[in-house]
Amino acid sequence: MMKTILKSAKETVVISPEEPTRLIGERINPTGKKRLAAALNDGDLSIVKQEAEEQVAAGADILDVNVGAAGVDEVDMLPKAVQLVMETVDVPVCIDSADPVALEAALKVHRELAPEGKPLINSVNGEEERLEAVLPLVAEYGAAVIGLAMDDDGIPPDSEKRFAVVRKIVERAEGLDIPREDIVIDCLALTVGADSQAAVVTLGAMRLVQEELGLNMTLGASNVSFGLPEREVINWAFLAMAIQNGLNCPIVDPAKVRQAVLAADLLLGRDDYAMRYIKAYKQRG
Amino acid sequence: MMKTILKSAKETVVISPEEPTRLIGERINPTGKKRLAAALNDGDLSIVKQEAEEQVAAGADILDVNVGAAGVDEVDMLPKAVQLVMETVDVPVCIDSADPVALEAALKVHRELAPEGKPLINSVNGEEERLEAVLPLVAEYGAAVIGLAMDDDGIPPDSEKRFAVVRKIVERAEGLDIPREDIVIDCLALTVGADSQAAVVTLGAMRLVQEELGLNMTLGASNVSFGLPEREVINWAFLAMAIQNGLNCPIVDPAKVRQAVLAADLLLGRDDYAMRYIKAYKQRG
Repeated sequence: MMKTILKSAKETVVISPEEPTRLIGERINPTGKKRLAAALNDGDLSIVKQEAEEQVAAGADILDVNVGAAGVDEVDMLPKAVQLVMETVDVPVCIDSADPVALEAALKVHRELAPEGKPLINSVNGEEERLEAVLPLVAEYGAAVIGLAMDDDGIPPDSEKRFAVVRKIVERAEGLDIPREDIVIDCLALTVGADSQAAVVTLGAMRLVQEELGLNMTLGASNVSFGLPEREVINWAFLAMAIQNGLNCPIVDPAKVRQAVLAADLLLGRDDYAMRYIKAYKQRG
Repeated sequence: MMKTILKSAKETVVISPEEPTRLIGERINPTGKKRLAAALNDGDLSIVKQEAEEQVAAGADILDVNVGAAGVDEVDMLPKAVQLVMETVDVPVCIDSADPVALEAALKVHRELAPEGKPLINSVNGEEERLEAVLPLVAEYGAAVIGLAMDDDGIPPDSEKRFAVVRKIVERAEGLDIPREDIVIDCLALTVGADSQAAVVTLGAMRLVQEELGLNMTLGASNVSFGLPEREVINWAFLAMAIQNGLNCPIVDPAKVRQAVLAADLLLGRDDYAMRYIKAYKQRG
């Protein structure tokens, strides 16, 4: 079984089909969050610290760190935010930026604070420019990387073409001696409100990745319900289906989905005697 | 695509992978319901009438009718209950009994009230005695039938053996010229609290039925969470996974699961513009 191993200075997290689903906390990201975006513009990282603590308390196994917002100098702020998260909580981090220079600055800080560490980079995709900029960083810093199933032609509209992009990313990574267990695939969730086939395509691509390559997979699952009422009901059902198709480290708000993810793990035989499910239930009171 | 067509006197329901998931209302069944069992013992069918109305209002597409309880004469009561349900609501019925004599008495009443009708019979399984008693009734009355994946050796502990029982039921039915679209398979949900592999085995068997035979499938889904806290969270996740694996007419309490089933249909591309999902949300207020 494919094992992606992430490490902070203090904790190791194994992502694998044999392990329980790992939650990547999504909340340190100013997209759609005006208060966080404004704070980052002021150089204020207090919300980042708070979100780090709260998400770990809610069950996050890994924390995504993204400071990309209009007016924010990511090359300056991303390393600072990564450092603060690493000093605040013990879990591994997922360094998230569209700017390769900011990624490298944050990777340097990560290496200083955790010389034996292994972060996740979010993300590479099948675009030539992106492959050329990000994969060398993955190799040089011994990181793992999220590979998005899109390329220079955009997000493919069918499962087979998304899978073809995944293959291309894996081949290019292996060309730089990045082992495939260090690649975590994101087949991309689009909203079913706009396209009734959106989730079918994503789930189909995941099934191909699961069956043909056996790679570990992430997904920004909540996009699927954008614009619809009672989003949690849709998100929970989508997570259950996607976990069945190989999703094992979704990027989510752990407080909102942990219960449903624990139920999915229980059903898939990853929670003997329902111990994790029952423990989480009791902790919530 | 396989189409199972059920008919009452007034309504036709098509069960097919291309259609939205159909809900078989489970509540007209005295198992575990002391008040209903006592009423049936007194010959009182008022609860049956009430449950029929409430389940259809909650979204049931088909109603299971079971009067099996200690002290109840099913041969007398099952036809009466079926008649009352047929006179109360328009949806097709699923005639549910372990007693072939009671089944036939109810089938006769069904034929009188709906000469062109087609009920579902619950159930046959791979036991010799059961095959010999029930399949001739299915053929004679032109009914459809639920086939349970168990036989004289009990419920097989792995997916492949459950699938082997399914194949046997299909072969035996076809030997009586019962077309396979009139067979609805139940791969049997056992509780994950007792066996961490219980749902894995069920889901694996369903995948085999889906891929190898393409038969329509039912499931008494809520068994899976027996004895565990927050059963709905587990049941919803299980329904999402099972619907992805071909479940298209679960036996459920519609008031408890309809929302989750509509979400699953939406994700699987069976609800254009999310119209059914949004309509149900608005109706609930």
